[in-house]
Amino acid sequence: MTPTTTRMHAEIAQQPEALRDTFDALLPQVPEIAALARQTRQVLFIARGSSDNAGVYGSYLVQAHAGRLASLASPSIATTYRKDVDLAGVLAVAISQSGRTEEIVETLRWAAANGARTVGLTNGAGSPLTEVADVALVTRAGNEVAVPATKTYSTQLAALAVLALGLGADVDAGELQLVPDEIERMLGQANGDLEEIVERLAGVGGAVVSGRGLAYSSALELALKLKEACYLHAMGLSYADLLHGPIAVVDDKTPAILLAADSGPTLDGTVELARRVTAAGAAAYGIGGGDRLGQACTLSLEGPRLPEWLAPIGLIVPGQLLTERLARRLGINPDAPRGLGKVTQTT
Amino acid sequence: MTPTTTRMHAEIAQQPEALRDTFDALLPQVPEIAALARQTRQVLFIARGSSDNAGVYGSYLVQAHAGRLASLASPSIATTYRKDVDLAGVLAVAISQSGRTEEIVETLRWAAANGARTVGLTNGAGSPLTEVADVALVTRAGNEVAVPATKTYSTQLAALAVLALGLGADVDAGELQLVPDEIERMLGQANGDLEEIVERLAGVGGAVVSGRGLAYSSALELALKLKEACYLHAMGLSYADLLHGPIAVVDDKTPAILLAADSGPTLDGTVELARRVTAAGAAAYGIGGGDRLGQACTLSLEGPRLPEWLAPIGLIVPGQLLTERLARRLGINPDAPRGLGKVTQTT
Repeated sequence: MTPTTTRMHAEIAQQPEALRDTFDALLPQVPEIAALARQTRQVLFIARGSSDNAGVYGSYLVQAHAGRLASLASPSIATTYRKDVDLAGVLAVAISQSGRTEEIVETLRWAAANGARTVGLTNGAGSPLTEVADVALVTRAGNEVAVPATKTYSTQLAALAVLALGLGADVDAGELQLVPDEIERMLGQANGDLEEIVERLAGVGGAVVSGRGLAYSSALELALKLKEACYLHAMGLSYADLLHGPIAVVDDKTPAILLAADSGPTLDGTVELARRVTAAGAAAYGIGGGDRLGQACTLSLEGPRLPEWLAPIGLIVPGQLLTERLARRLGINPDAPRGLGKVTQTT
Repeated sequence: MTPTTTRMHAEIAQQPEALRDTFDALLPQVPEIAALARQTRQVLFIARGSSDNAGVYGSYLVQAHAGRLASLASPSIATTYRKDVDLAGVLAVAISQSGRTEEIVETLRWAAANGARTVGLTNGAGSPLTEVADVALVTRAGNEVAVPATKTYSTQLAALAVLALGLGADVDAGELQLVPDEIERMLGQANGDLEEIVERLAGVGGAVVSGRGLAYSSALELALKLKEACYLHAMGLSYADLLHGPIAVVDDKTPAILLAADSGPTLDGTVELARRVTAAGAAAYGIGGGDRLGQACTLSLEGPRLPEWLAPIGLIVPGQLLTERLARRLGINPDAPRGLGKVTQTT
């Protein structure tokens, strides 16, 4: 039986409150982050799954706004190859919803042993990750029951925005308060072509999901949600990688879903990509990107009215609603997809 | 009309010679690489598409065997956000088949301006990339006409193995000479279940392609080939990320293709993954991994008998043959897939 109301939907709706609570809890930690960051020169994110997509946001944010190199770790170097790597000058930021995924906790321990300063970003207060880290950033998402991460993902992005402030990012901290209000506004109204996009996606064989720069994080996260909750062959690809070969894969049975902020330097490229997709005979479904992306796409969903550096937090919300609705349309209970539990251990 | 003999097939067969020529040309440059590397502490790869997959190999190799942090750059920080990032102590290695992709050349220039030492790895002798770089590593793949990269990819991996020697990797340099001979042996004989895997893939809606650690590079590369030359919904996923959600996507219409070396610390995990895939009711097609992976999979292709650090160069070869054969089976000319040219410019 497919439920008509789901935990996933309830948890999507809890995001404005979860984001307010998270900002309130973490903003006072900015000086503590800054003190730790002064001992380092670059950032290394350690994560898997949805948390890894959050790390992509963190990586672009730190590089585009705080002038530091940032990248994603390969945990298997620590846990499978068991090799030491020189991490002097590195701020290692481990991200785990539960704070209990052993691979991530072990990799953060490895980072500290190799000379890194450490941050643990988790929704799990008192979890092993918070004990290992020099500084713990605990999100206030509350209990998340549905398997697909929603409010734990968006609050991770919120915590990474706070981390960027601690790293001295050239952004206006006052804009953070816009985020919960804007997501509340988005959730309070019908969203564009949602039902028609759901109907069309119910009949396709797969989809490409793409975004550029900061928005790439939430494009990858939407691709992951569509795979895990809808069993859709969703291929998350960066803008440039899509043009380097995989553009061949879009066709009348394989649409592209394109995410963009409604301002910033990546919007032009995303609009151009929508035009290339439709010129290839495929449908393009836009999320965000304002009127310009909407007009270049076949169908579209309104995105957040937020500055580009914060837009990914709002851009995932129409994607979450799309995933929840499409799963039910396909007869899947999105709260409990096949083969998945809430805490994943990689052995 | 689908050709019965293709340029792609001819270029696959040229790899033993291309690899010999590349090793001969680049091994004398090890001291030059070492001198440059001594001025740095970590490595940053700059690439897109197949070259980016080569960068994944380089990143694992440098970390697992040379004790240095290595990661992949986000070129849009340089070319779209146009932000400066502190790159003191960084060895930036740009990889481009043609050496003429403007985004990559521009990003390497940006890296140098931000304090990095620079290497340009390309098949394009005299290309702009070789002029920008402190050290140019020019592969000897010869002219590649088919759009899907084959010998330019494997020779990039060969060049990265040489780069690792320059970084002081704890490997036996004498093993390099095994690679061309082993690929020649593989190409000279029929490969296991190739025809049956082609028949089965011709009927599926999509596939997951996965590998762990060093082998992840060639798993991503095979997923890219299957997308660009066969229009297959091929989802390239790391072992751990596959378990964090996307394992739900495998089913009787969505097999997994799993790549592994026949020794090394990642083999156990890949065998276990094959068991999880078949337990979920999906087919698992193995490439390499010796008898153990072969027995855990539904069907399999023999991989190279090479030490794990060099295995990805041989592991892509059965994948190339599979791609070429599947494209023709589907009525596609693999030499010229729709929508693609040989040099991709990202604007």
